[in-house]
Amino acid sequence: MNVVIVGLGEMGASLACDLRQSPQIKLIGVDRNAVSLAYARKTGLVDETSQDLATVAAQADLIILATPVDSIEKMIAQLGQLPLKATVIVTDAGSTKRAIMAQARQFLLPKGITFIGGHAMAGSHLAGVQAAKTGMYRQAPYFLMPADEQAASRVGDLKDILAPTGANFITMSVDEHDDLMAVISDNPHVIAFALMNSAVNDLGKSQDFGQYVAGGFKDMTRIAASNPQLWSDILLSNQKAVLNNLTSFRQALDQFQRAIEASDETALLQLISRAQTSRQNLLIKRENND
Amino acid sequence: MNVVIVGLGEMGASLACDLRQSPQIKLIGVDRNAVSLAYARKTGLVDETSQDLATVAAQADLIILATPVDSIEKMIAQLGQLPLKATVIVTDAGSTKRAIMAQARQFLLPKGITFIGGHAMAGSHLAGVQAAKTGMYRQAPYFLMPADEQAASRVGDLKDILAPTGANFITMSVDEHDDLMAVISDNPHVIAFALMNSAVNDLGKSQDFGQYVAGGFKDMTRIAASNPQLWSDILLSNQKAVLNNLTSFRQALDQFQRAIEASDETALLQLISRAQTSRQNLLIKRENND
Repeated sequence: MNVVIVGLGEMGASLACDLRQSPQIKLIGVDRNAVSLAYARKTGLVDETSQDLATVAAQADLIILATPVDSIEKMIAQLGQLPLKATVIVTDAGSTKRAIMAQARQFLLPKGITFIGGHAMAGSHLAGVQAAKTGMYRQAPYFLMPADEQAASRVGDLKDILAPTGANFITMSVDEHDDLMAVISDNPHVIAFALMNSAVNDLGKSQDFGQYVAGGFKDMTRIAASNPQLWSDILLSNQKAVLNNLTSFRQALDQFQRAIEASDETALLQLISRAQTSRQNLLIKRENND
Repeated sequence: MNVVIVGLGEMGASLACDLRQSPQIKLIGVDRNAVSLAYARKTGLVDETSQDLATVAAQADLIILATPVDSIEKMIAQLGQLPLKATVIVTDAGSTKRAIMAQARQFLLPKGITFIGGHAMAGSHLAGVQAAKTGMYRQAPYFLMPADEQAASRVGDLKDILAPTGANFITMSVDEHDDLMAVISDNPHVIAFALMNSAVNDLGKSQDFGQYVAGGFKDMTRIAASNPQLWSDILLSNQKAVLNNLTSFRQALDQFQRAIEASDETALLQLISRAQTSRQNLLIKRENND
């Protein structure tokens, strides 16, 4: 079985590390960067390399697009023009899905090509092929979003191939995925950004008040240090779900504000207790993993 | 020199561990709980114990009130009625200061008793005398708030006695302290509570969606598991500063919402970049301590 991984960055190269463990898989690495490809060959990360997806796509049983989202979109259009195996599965590793799915509907589905969107909640702040790490996906949530019913029937095949990752595979629709991401990832970033900015508005430069902060503030703002271009792209590409959840967050905040304004201890206790219980239950199923 | 510590919980008992290192200090532990006192004597945490502040207050050079806030308030009223050394310093370990300072102004200052409020940003989720830990205050921000000019002239004496803690002492006014706490501690809690509650409103029970969340959401909601009664007390006792900062946070959030609604990438990049830079600078001065 031939698996083509396009983009040997942290995500793609770490997938290669895991798939190495399947003796029946031949791994073909594609990257624009010749140095990354040389490194991947030298370290045995992949069996073959190419700088051009077109030269290796025809032999692929699985194609994993693990580049930035705009590049994934372009490659999907390209794949629609290439001769591919009838049984090939195309998947990706982009963190937003709506635009990618639109591309798949336009360029792959009309040709009968199977597309299953993928998004793993894994990765560090490291980048590049040298950040490759065996086991990076272990127990990580790994969302799979089949583009149509035909693709849905192939999810089991994809999971079998990706089984060496040890990821926690979850199948859902693109809308479910994007709504979920708005709540658990996108808006927490917006809130962290806004908290950081309002603290600076109120207290002045962070290098001056930083000496006073304890773990809570550090935890709450850690993701405020995230990459601006990446997060601007994510927030705008998931605009509708982000705005919906922002409204929901504001309503929850309103309840606290009203209780504090009214010095309503009973209401405040109830609101905090609800949050406490929910947070305590959040990690029940995978506590050993936190 | 005689130091009386009232309340041998985690905060008070850990202070005792550190002050043990000064050979010239005689430590007297006061607690309502006889079992805690027996443990403190048995382990040599203190030299003497008493269940009654009144019996030991007269010999004290320093009295540290390390009980819950409402109990600190009562003890301040009690100390105003007791015979004390003219040079005694009274301090406390309460996390909100306005009510405690009002008590000090009413009961201690008219008698010429020195009161310096204290609040250390240290401690774990553990409780009780057995949670005592040497070095718990090391490099932790430890705020000192003298009640009047006379008390301000004694801050140096208090720092000298507390020097074995290795804490990072910072002198400020009660108003400055309470405003600072609203920004770096109180509202981050409100926001974490609201984020947790809105996630449950949008996604259902946390034990069901918990399997999907990654580090960002876990970090952002960790303090949502805090004690409801404690935080209800803190938020209501610092009501004005909390509401002011909540308004400031909402304004910062509005800027993000407008940029996302308008698909204004330039504005969004600017807002996120500002947060990123501020967060990166937050820990510059004490990076090794994070």
